[in-house]
Parts: sequence; C-alpha cells; structure tokens
Amino acid sequence: MTERYLEDLHVGDRFESGTIEVTENGIVDFAHDFDPQPFHLDLDVAKRSIFEGLAASGWHTAAMSMKLFVTGGLRLAGGSVGLGVDELRWPRPVRPGDTLRLQTEIVEVRPSRSKPDCGIIRIRNETTNQNGEVVQVFLTSLLVRRRPAN
Amino acid sequence: MTERYLEDLHVGDRFESGTIEVTENGIVDFAHDFDPQPFHLDLDVAKRSIFEGLAASGWHTAAMSMKLFVTGGLRLAGGSVGLGVDELRWPRPVRPGDTLRLQTEIVEVRPSRSKPDCGIIRIRNETTNQNGEVVQVFLTSLLVRRRPAN
Repeated sequence: MTERYLEDLHVGDRFESGTIEVTENGIVDFAHDFDPQPFHLDLDVAKRSIFEGLAASGWHTAAMSMKLFVTGGLRLAGGSVGLGVDELRWPRPVRPGDTLRLQTEIVEVRPSRSKPDCGIIRIRNETTNQNGEVVQVFLTSLLVRRRPAN
Repeated sequence: MTERYLEDLHVGDRFESGTIEVTENGIVDFAHDFDPQPFHLDLDVAKRSIFEGLAASGWHTAAMSMKLFVTGGLRLAGGSVGLGVDELRWPRPVRPGDTLRLQTEIVEVRPSRSKPDCGIIRIRNETTNQNGEVVQVFLTSLLVRRRPAN
C-alpha cells in the first residue's frame, strides 16, 4: 500500500475501507470497559430502552471506524494524526451482526502555517452498515507530511 | 446517586468525575484493537514520532472520558444518550502513568421539539491529567427525560 504525502492528495479524492463485523460480545465488552450503561450491557434492558435492542456505544462505533480508517485505502506517510473532530453524529444504531464499512472523502487540502514540512487535510468519514445506511459521520483534520525534496 | 431529570439541570451547573489511571498496557491494547498505528503500539517508534513517546489514541482518550462521564457526578434518568459531538480536540498527549479526570459543565438546557417528554442539554466535557492540563475537550448534546407528572 502506497504511503501518500500532501502532494498526492486532492479535494474530492475518495477512499474505501475493508469491513468489520459487529458482534454482541464486542458491543458488551466495549461497553463494560468504557460505557457501562445498562442499555449497552443487557439485552432485556436494551429492548425496553430508547434503542429498542442492543446497540453499540457511539464511542465504540467511532473506535471501529478508526480501525477501518487506519487499515483502509488512505495511508498517510507518518501515520494518521488527528487534530480534532467536528460534527460527529450517529444517525442510526449499530447492532450485533452489522457489517461496517468506511468511506473517506477529502474536502480540503492546505499547507500548515506552523510546520513548513507538513500540510493539513480535512476529510469527511462516513461509516455505513450492510444496508448502506449511515451509522456515523464526522469531519476531521489530519496532519500530513509534504514529500521530502530529493 | 440521584438520577436527574431535565427540570433538575441548569446552565452553569458543574459536575466532577472520579479518576482513571492510564497504563502502557491499556494504551497498547486499545491501539491494537482500534488504532493499530506503530506510534501507539511500539515504544521505540513512538519515541521517534511526532508524539515523542507512547501516547494514547485520541479515541481511547474519548472512550476513557465516557467511562468517567457515565460513572461521574451527572447521572441522567434513562441514561446518557448522546446526539452528537462537536469541537472534539486533544490539545496534549495522554501518557502511560497519567491520571485522568473529567469536568462537565452544562452550557444549554432546552425542551425537545420532537419528543414532548424529553429535553436536550448541551454540555462541555473537559478531561484533564494529574497536572491539571487539558488533554481533551468537546461539546455534546444529550437527550434528557422530563420529570414525569405525579
């Protein structure tokens, strides 16, 4: 997989990820560690909750999406260093048995003001399930290296 | 711990959490599962990276902060259901040995337009380390139940 530098990236470029299968154990284990609310831990409570069934913590969906991103089509030289996240939304619940996939689109490319050997790209990351329904979306800015002079 | 309804919450109210100790194993385990980049997995690579040492994935810091939130001082009736996150930033790295703590401040309280038995609060969640340095901050909106009529 080619590592990309700032000069290789353009507004409108799109990248695809592989997939992750969501399991009941995965949902419950993550919730136990990081979001121990009854509706993420217990099937009966979940059925009677606003989620109407077991659903992954939003932070679990975010973490799985990061896995899809770093193992996906956009490999940045020096790695993916996030400067921040905006407009993170979870329009639909993530369920046991779902298969998640990430689509990444570059929405901005610019030089860094403070680091002359770097630039910043802004991307839109959209996570979808096996039905193509969006389960998470956010915008993020990443630090990207410029290609070194020969 | 008292569960709070919309009527119990006011702009400017502040809540404190307990603490979480960050370990090297915890950082590496999370990175292995969700953010498998060399600078989150390997101490030598981390030293030579932009982080100048092992640092937690930002999504790990977010997940640990969620644990602090749901076990902290603001317990909402019906649980904490996030509608979205804005302006998520990681101004400083989280290191092995750090002790994290969360401060929550309510910045908006309003009725829900679509759900008459609910309201929405907007909160600012700030995660600090043992030196009082901010390692993460974000804004989020949560669905909160109104107190049922007797």
